[in-house]
Order: sequence, then C-alpha cells, then structure tokens
Amino acid sequence: MNIPQTSFPRVVIIGGGFAGLAAARGLEEQELQVVLLDKHNYHTFQPLLYQVATGGLEPDSIAFPLRKRFNDVENFYFRLTEVQKINPENNTIETSIGSLEYDELIIATGSTTNFFGNTNIQKHTMEMKSIPQSLNIRSLILENFEEALLTSNIEERNALMNFVIVGGGPTGVELAGALAEMKKGILPKDYPDLDIRQMQINLIQSSDCILKGMSAKASEKAEDFLIKLGVNVWKNLRVLDYDGKTVTTNGEDHFKAETVIWAAGVKGQMIDGLNTECVIERAARIKVNEYNQVLGHPNVYAIGDVACMSSEKTPFGHPMMAQPAIQQGRLVAKNILAKLFNKKQEVFVYKDKGSMATIGRNKAVVDLKNWKFQGVFAWFVWMFVHLFSLIGFRNKAIVFLNWVYNYIRFDRETRLIIRPYKNKNSFSFRK
Amino acid sequence: MNIPQTSFPRVVIIGGGFAGLAAARGLEEQELQVVLLDKHNYHTFQPLLYQVATGGLEPDSIAFPLRKRFNDVENFYFRLTEVQKINPENNTIETSIGSLEYDELIIATGSTTNFFGNTNIQKHTMEMKSIPQSLNIRSLILENFEEALLTSNIEERNALMNFVIVGGGPTGVELAGALAEMKKGILPKDYPDLDIRQMQINLIQSSDCILKGMSAKASEKAEDFLIKLGVNVWKNLRVLDYDGKTVTTNGEDHFKAETVIWAAGVKGQMIDGLNTECVIERAARIKVNEYNQVLGHPNVYAIGDVACMSSEKTPFGHPMMAQPAIQQGRLVAKNILAKLFNKKQEVFVYKDKGSMATIGRNKAVVDLKNWKFQGVFAWFVWMFVHLFSLIGFRNKAIVFLNWVYNYIRFDRETRLIIRPYKNKNSFSFRK
Repeated sequence: MNIPQTSFPRVVIIGGGFAGLAAARGLEEQELQVVLLDKHNYHTFQPLLYQVATGGLEPDSIAFPLRKRFNDVENFYFRLTEVQKINPENNTIETSIGSLEYDELIIATGSTTNFFGNTNIQKHTMEMKSIPQSLNIRSLILENFEEALLTSNIEERNALMNFVIVGGGPTGVELAGALAEMKKGILPKDYPDLDIRQMQINLIQSSDCILKGMSAKASEKAEDFLIKLGVNVWKNLRVLDYDGKTVTTNGEDHFKAETVIWAAGVKGQMIDGLNTECVIERAARIKVNEYNQVLGHPNVYAIGDVACMSSEKTPFGHPMMAQPAIQQGRLVAKNILAKLFNKKQEVFVYKDKGSMATIGRNKAVVDLKNWKFQGVFAWFVWMFVHLFSLIGFRNKAIVFLNWVYNYIRFDRETRLIIRPYKNKNSFSFRK
Repeated sequence: MNIPQTSFPRVVIIGGGFAGLAAARGLEEQELQVVLLDKHNYHTFQPLLYQVATGGLEPDSIAFPLRKRFNDVENFYFRLTEVQKINPENNTIETSIGSLEYDELIIATGSTTNFFGNTNIQKHTMEMKSIPQSLNIRSLILENFEEALLTSNIEERNALMNFVIVGGGPTGVELAGALAEMKKGILPKDYPDLDIRQMQINLIQSSDCILKGMSAKASEKAEDFLIKLGVNVWKNLRVLDYDGKTVTTNGEDHFKAETVIWAAGVKGQMIDGLNTECVIERAARIKVNEYNQVLGHPNVYAIGDVACMSSEKTPFGHPMMAQPAIQQGRLVAKNILAKLFNKKQEVFVYKDKGSMATIGRNKAVVDLKNWKFQGVFAWFVWMFVHLFSLIGFRNKAIVFLNWVYNYIRFDRETRLIIRPYKNKNSFSFRK
C-alpha cells in the first residue's frame, strides 16, 4: 500500500468515525506510525444527517476532511480505501488498494442499516447512515412534491405526500420532527397549489414506546411533541414489507407511500476474516473483552458500534452511539501506548453522559444522570452540545449561522435537488 | 401540465438563470400568470462554480431555491422540467411533463459547453457549467491525489498531478488560479508524502492573450499573476484532442494528464422548434431583434446567453455573461407589461458595467468604463460585487463567512469527495 516501513510499530485504524477518530487523536505524536483508512475522505457528523436530509444544513458543514485533521501530525498516514479482509493470523489486512501489515489493529468500521434480511425493504426504502444517503432523501422528498403537483389522481398524489418512517429511535424521531416542521413552515409556501394538509408523516415503532433507550418521561414527552406537530405515531406496529408502493404491517393499517425511510435497525459494519467465535452473526458485531480486544487476538481491537463488549451489566454491549465510541477510542489509544511502555492496560468503564433528541423548534428531550428535562431549555442544550461536538471552527460557525437563520426566519433554505434521486436520467416524472 | 387557466395572459419563462430570473422578477404581481420552468429547482450563481470545484465553497451556498424566491408572488407557477420543443405556430411548448399554451414566451435557456463537435473531448474532459459538474471536478481532483499516492510509476503519478485547463477566459483563469492556491497552501499539507512541486497547472489559450474580452492591461496583469502563482500559461496553442490520457495540440507540446477541464467554449442551450432562419446554427443561439423578439414571432422572446442580438456594434451579439442577461431579462419584462398596457416597447441598449476576474488571494483584475485596476483593491471589489450579487441573505452570509475563514486561515475546507466521480462503484483506484 505504499506506506513506508519504519522502526516504529504500526497501528492501523479502520474507519474515521467517532471511534476511529478518537483513537487516532489519542495516538498522535507518539513513537508510533498511525495509518487511518476510510472509504470517505471525511469524517461524518452523523447526528445531524437528518438536517441535511430535510434541507436545514448543507452536507459540507457536517463533514470534516480527515486529512486536514491530521495535517501537522508526524508519522500519520491516511488512505482512502475499503478494507476487504483482515488476516489476524499473520497481522495483515487486504484492501482495495493492496495489503498492509500491522502491529496493532483497531477496527472502527461503525454500523450500517439492518434490513433484517428483507431484500424488498432494502431495495425500496431509503437509509440515512451517510451524507450521500441523506442527500438522496433530500432529493426524493422534493422530487415527490414536484411530482405530486402534476397528477390529478388523488390516490397517487396522496402516496407522493405520504411519508413513512420506520423506527422510533432518535433518527426516526428527529427526522419525523424535521419533516413536520417542513410541513408547517415551508411546504405550504413552496407548493401553494397543493393541499399540504394531505401530507402525512407516519412514524412506526414496533414496541410500545418511542426513544426506547431514554427515560419514560422523555419518551412520553417526545411522543407528545410529535403528535402536536402533526406526526402520526404508530406504536406496537411492525412493518413486514414494502414493495415500493405499499407498506404492509402486522396490523390492520397499511400505508400507500412513495417515501419510506428505514430507521428501524442498525448492525455492525462487519469485516471479513474473523473466526465465527469472535463475532455475533445476527448483530454483525465483534465480541471484545473489557480492553476492546478481539477474542484470541490481543493486538486486534474493535471499538464503537461494531464492537460488542458483553458483561453482566451490558449483555448486548454498549449502545451503538457516539459516546461509547469516543470513550472506547480514547481508551484503546491509551492502552496501546501503555503496552508500548510496558504499563498496565486499563479496563473500559462506560461513563454514560446521558442522551438527548430534538423533535423540532423549541422541542427536545434530555436525559442526564440525575436530571431529565424537556422543552425549550432542552432544545438549547441539544443545540449547544451538538454545535460543540462538531469538528472544526468553520463547520461550527456555518451550522450556527444556519440555525440562527432558520430559527429567526422559520426557514430551511437548502431545499435543493442537486443530484436527482428518482429522476436520475431524465426529468420526466412519469414512470 | 396542470396549470390553471385564468383570464390573465400567461407568460412562460424557460430557465431560471440570471436572465429568466430577472424577467420573472419584473413580471411579479401584475395582471399576468407567470410560469417559470427549469430543470433544476434552484438558481445557480455560476460565477462562483469554480470555488465549489476547488473546495472553497459548499454547493448549497451558491444555489437558491427558485420556489422560495417566488413564495409570496400571486399567479406564479414553477415547474421542474426539461422543455423538449416549442411550437411557435400554435403558441405551445412540449415538456417532459406535458404541453403548455402560452401567450408570451421567454426563452432563457442559457448556454452549455461547446466541444465544437469533438466527441473525444466531450467524453473525456470535465465541464463546469452546473453545480453537479463542479462537484464532479472537486471529486476528481481529490481522487487523483489519493491515487497519486498509491503508484510508484512516476509517469502515472505525474499524469495524476497534471491539470490542464483549456480556455483562457474568466472560467479558465479563475479555476487555474484557485488550483494554484490549493497547490500552495493546502495540498502539501494534505499530502506530505507526495512531492507537490510535481503538480502542474497548465492553462491553454488558443489566441495570443488570456481574458480576451478585457483590457490589454487586465490580460497582461492576470497572466502575470498566474505565472507568479506557478501556472503554466500557454498561448497560441490549440488543443486538438484528448483521449483520456494525452492532450494533443497543434504545437510541439502534448500533455499527459488525468484531469482536463474544458472551458474553451460555450454555445447556446438551443431548443427545438424554431425555423432555421431564426437560429445561428454554429453558435446555437437564437437571432433576436432589438426587443429580444425572435424573428417572425413577436410573442416569443429570447434573452441572455441563448439570444444573439446582432447589430453593427455587436455583430456577434452581446457577451455571454450575467450582465447582458440580467438587463435583457428586465427589459423584456418591462416590454411585455408595456404591450399589455398598449404602451410603446423599448429598444435594448446594453449598459456595460465592466468586467472582472479573480486570480487568487489579493489578486484580481477589474475593468470599469473609465477605470481599470488590478491587485488587492480589485480583489476586494470583486468579492464585494459577487457577494452582493448572490441571492438571499443566508447565501451571502455563508459565502462571506467562508471567505473570511479561508482568507485568515489560508484554507479551503470543503475538500470532500461526497460523490466519487472516478470510483463511482468501487473504491479501487486501480483501473
């Protein structure tokens, strides 16, 4: 792969998400060679993808060039590639641009959408795990409204204005809320010749509450906010199939909808080459011990979403969110340095800093350890935390500017179909 | 097309560029129905496309949603479509979403890249007339540097770092300057393991000076600036062909380059349905009289780049730039209203407000009628004029913020490969 061989041990990190980035930062300027591999040349701030999808933010403001982050770091190498396989037996990895030896390997490949094997759903629904996917959703939403204008068939028009979001986790809730804000403030102005009241936003959750990982109070309040915003919240309803036209469920309700967003599950972004006893097949996650080491391979670590550190307290591992990823990344870096200096490695203990979700303008829910609150203040806390978690001054400033503008003007101005999704090759909306 | 029939006359405008937008603005809130058609749902601020291509600006900051611009305008309709044909004999147009009758038609389709019939060049070079095209260039530049890192073949590596820009007009000059700034400030930091001195930026102009439409002083100074920035300026050199590997010219110099940007010509974006005597085949422009009316069709106007108003003073029509487009758009709107109120139509007289081009940091050339100046002050004037020409407060603010940041930090932060161009389907750089 054209990485110079030095006398320093080589640490290879696969993935520049929250986990991989935290690990790389922790290994800066040490007597190590660090190689970071990612299939994008930027870090994606995933918590704000839904705002890109709903025209509130430009994609460039939630992406940060990975090379820039490590511009001044010695012995640091970035390569844009997809890793195809790891060979822990001989300490090498295979990638689309050649193979590479490592001394220590950190797998931080993150997660991907889980369609639970349903190929219909995979084919016809939209996912929102990356910037291109968010831009596809943005295009599709707007294309559907443009198309809705053209038809005099009421059933067809309603299907174009019917949005189904499957999954009542933070992604689904935040997206549903943002769509509801669009319905309120923007779409009636943009499409005065459409009856926007006909637009339906359906949030479908298979269990009996939304925001399952949060407190009962947060869940209730979030549902309350959504309902007030006009979102149809469906609980205890399981989506069985979607053929591109109709969402079928295990209940009596079916949904004729042109836009279905699948936020009902994630799984690890698995990587080939590990023994079956090292992985949890169903969840596509890698079993790790309390040092994030992969079973039988003390120099291979898995961190973040793809890692599953099972214990009595956490039988299914830690939540697949930014915080455990960042904390594991930091600790793994520390532990690798400890190993280097023959010091004792530290066991991972997750510090739960709480969780939060925003539903819309002035509406958010925040669960801290000893304090749970909802509403306007929670919304400001949400914004503050997200703003300061963004990498880079420029991104912070641009997101801040957008938020202030959107708040004051009740607007979302990046409602642009830059790359059409539905009408890639022609502008004919009729299929 | 599902546009209501009213008692008001219907004005159809094809194209939401500078010309079409100016016309639409001039017809607001009159006893008219205005229908604006465009194949994008946004207006593109073309003069800044090169900054999107070189990672200095996000695409969303130079695009403005057309629907938003006309949110509060009565009797205004926008449709996202491509117009396929006009039938001036029976006052209808045919589009991808159906046909439409008009009382007055304004053709403002703008211009497209002119490859002068060379299909090789068309196939292998990059054009930069739209936002998606600029994003393709952005991706390609960065992908080529990523690829250059991987090869130990010096010839291959040099070809990946060899940039050829064909055409020494404002587009070519500004793009060459921006690339040179990247070479100076950013690429050596991003790719410390590449010898960026090997990067070549070649600007090829077929005639004996660059910025041909500007003053001799501006042309000389711009060339001077480019040379100081390290751009190879080739004059009196004509590109004959490009097979994806080698640019062949009519001189002794040929260029092995992976990136060739074709900025050597534009032609009108012609539309089917006009008689041959109404059009200039070679330039794909529509002949218009001094009222911008198309020959033989007093209710069909062509304005902006696609229109050619030939006179003794302007045998080849007006320059294909924003100013004539805006001025013609405004006057056509006025003239249509004059017709409506049985008043006299006015003849178009072009007010040349001057022209300008920026070459790089603190370097621009400005030609006003009675004052021509170059350098730092010209650069500030350039920025001021462009900032204030952008539509919308948000876009102005975001562009301003980027410029201040880029200026202070010597940076361009949106160097993101969001949609890979060269490696669309796989991240394998090896072809």
